[in-house]
Amino acid sequence: MAIGFTITKEDGRSRARRGTLITPHGTVQTPIFMPVGTQATVKTMTPEEVQDCGGALVLSNTYHLYLRPGHALVAEAGGLHKFMRWDGPILTDSGGFQVFSLGPLRKISDQGVTFRSHIDGSEHFFSPEKSMEIQMALGADVAMAFDECAPYSSSYEQTRAAMERTTRWAERCRMRHDRKDQALFGIIQGGMYRDLRLQSAAELAALDFPGHGIGGLSVGEPKPLMYEVLDYLVPAMPREKPRYLMGVGSPDCLLEGVFRGVDMFDCVLPTRIARNGTVFTRDGKLVVRNAEYARDFRPLDPECDCYTCRNFSRAYIRHLIKANEVLGIRLTTLHNLRFVLRLMENIRAAIDGDYFVAYKEDFLRRFKLD
Amino acid sequence: MAIGFTITKEDGRSRARRGTLITPHGTVQTPIFMPVGTQATVKTMTPEEVQDCGGALVLSNTYHLYLRPGHALVAEAGGLHKFMRWDGPILTDSGGFQVFSLGPLRKISDQGVTFRSHIDGSEHFFSPEKSMEIQMALGADVAMAFDECAPYSSSYEQTRAAMERTTRWAERCRMRHDRKDQALFGIIQGGMYRDLRLQSAAELAALDFPGHGIGGLSVGEPKPLMYEVLDYLVPAMPREKPRYLMGVGSPDCLLEGVFRGVDMFDCVLPTRIARNGTVFTRDGKLVVRNAEYARDFRPLDPECDCYTCRNFSRAYIRHLIKANEVLGIRLTTLHNLRFVLRLMENIRAAIDGDYFVAYKEDFLRRFKLD
Repeated sequence: MAIGFTITKEDGRSRARRGTLITPHGTVQTPIFMPVGTQATVKTMTPEEVQDCGGALVLSNTYHLYLRPGHALVAEAGGLHKFMRWDGPILTDSGGFQVFSLGPLRKISDQGVTFRSHIDGSEHFFSPEKSMEIQMALGADVAMAFDECAPYSSSYEQTRAAMERTTRWAERCRMRHDRKDQALFGIIQGGMYRDLRLQSAAELAALDFPGHGIGGLSVGEPKPLMYEVLDYLVPAMPREKPRYLMGVGSPDCLLEGVFRGVDMFDCVLPTRIARNGTVFTRDGKLVVRNAEYARDFRPLDPECDCYTCRNFSRAYIRHLIKANEVLGIRLTTLHNLRFVLRLMENIRAAIDGDYFVAYKEDFLRRFKLD
Repeated sequence: MAIGFTITKEDGRSRARRGTLITPHGTVQTPIFMPVGTQATVKTMTPEEVQDCGGALVLSNTYHLYLRPGHALVAEAGGLHKFMRWDGPILTDSGGFQVFSLGPLRKISDQGVTFRSHIDGSEHFFSPEKSMEIQMALGADVAMAFDECAPYSSSYEQTRAAMERTTRWAERCRMRHDRKDQALFGIIQGGMYRDLRLQSAAELAALDFPGHGIGGLSVGEPKPLMYEVLDYLVPAMPREKPRYLMGVGSPDCLLEGVFRGVDMFDCVLPTRIARNGTVFTRDGKLVVRNAEYARDFRPLDPECDCYTCRNFSRAYIRHLIKANEVLGIRLTTLHNLRFVLRLMENIRAAIDGDYFVAYKEDFLRRFKLD
């Protein structure tokens, strides 16, 4: 087994649980938020900075690395860990989500997906087998099965077809995957339909993957609907295997996800909004670009322990962002990443200390996004 | 006196000299290269990174800070040191060079210069007095007199007029400047004309500034011509005061400048070319963007001690730059800055050890820019 997962504590008042995920590149504590290093770099940050923020497991994107610099080159460099100099564990997605997001640029059949590169328009073909080949070349600790994620607007029939194809593809991924130092997770689809979600969970559980992604959420649906799906889906997933809610990373969603039994999360949101000049604070969001902060010499979040907040003022950061200075987006990115990773540290401590539900309620009482 | 300057050693085989410059924010060793923080940030870097590269004195730009965020805001923040969190010494230029570089956007009279902002086209007026007011508000350790830098293409008469105006303006700067914890340097002009340069040097020496900038070089003339000017100009400058060659920072020019008796340098070149994917190596330049480095897993410069070279490959850095990832230009900037600052460290050690001329010849024998 490439990975091991141990549940160290289960919360008495929710489905929240603490665990350890043992990988070839070290052991990490769950619930965990995984910073996203789309193109073999967590945007704007060095590996040391990601680590200093509390990052332990980094996600990288198969679609992007396949197109540039190419998985063969990464393999030649000694694998993704060595290429990007991240010594901790890495998870790669399957490329499915990106390829399906290309819209009119792609053609789907049971065989796989033909798509055009967003970089140069060249034509490419991804199949479950191809995704495995690429991910094995990249050499992450965890690979994801190639899935079809139907859009939120899909009908029941369309969603069912995509879900059933996802199961067939998951079997093909399992057949092709043979890298011993890499775990392969299946991905549950089924949209917002309870019976499809439960069918998908059952079919994937039967394939005995060492972990499961929950795909097709956070794709435009209202948050309460996502929570509703988690309410019935998570209990139908194997208890002893890690559960990974893909593409979710807003602080409120992290708390609600953990509450419902999710162990792993990833999302570009914290770092993407940072690059637009929006940062998290204990009270919610703060758009530091705004004129009202021009002469505000306080830190972004006076309660934050990050490098940015220990050293720089809102006025200075606003100046940097208005002047298009790279240091500005470095400082906001670092702050937001630390904010989310500290939230996960607090969540883990709260589960350990038997006060998770109280912590969640207290956090959400003050933290307002609108 | 806001600053003190002590010559600690003079080379026996050249005009090179070692010194210490004592400022309100600490003592620095000369000859020194000053990293440029145009908009109150050395592009892409934190203050700690600049320091780790060996940066001791940072330059910032009066023109840019006046326009954005405004000197009043910087003063309100507690001054430039506090605003940008650089605890070491800072030098601000006078804004003259930038304003005169605006070309058709400006109108000059003896009174001062009317110009339009490159940001929003708004009209502004700089005079010697205004430049002093702005620089005193910014609060750097060293301010520069407001000068007129005639273009390289100027006739003798035009160059003479600009040089004589520079002297008159230098007197007005001295009259207006009254910040005790800030030194004011005069700037020598006179283009490539020996008599004008010597006249400028004599007139400024008579004004008894604590240091002198050499302006109007590195403005498009061939390097040998610049060296020729230094050959006759530097000996005409007061021995006991620091000599600052403005806007010069190519490794070869640093060596030739020190050889001719220059103590201080600044230049955006090392950091600007870095952002375009060009780095210095012991052998000259390397354009890491180029396809030939796609599968080159060696460091940028195998002899370099910088963070970039200790950790990352040419192939990875090339990937980052091709993919427009911020980490790419962070790594190249850091490398180039360290390269130039280490060169200055080596130069200082060479002067101290009585082998400067041999060091210079050895360095230039191998280092080829073309």
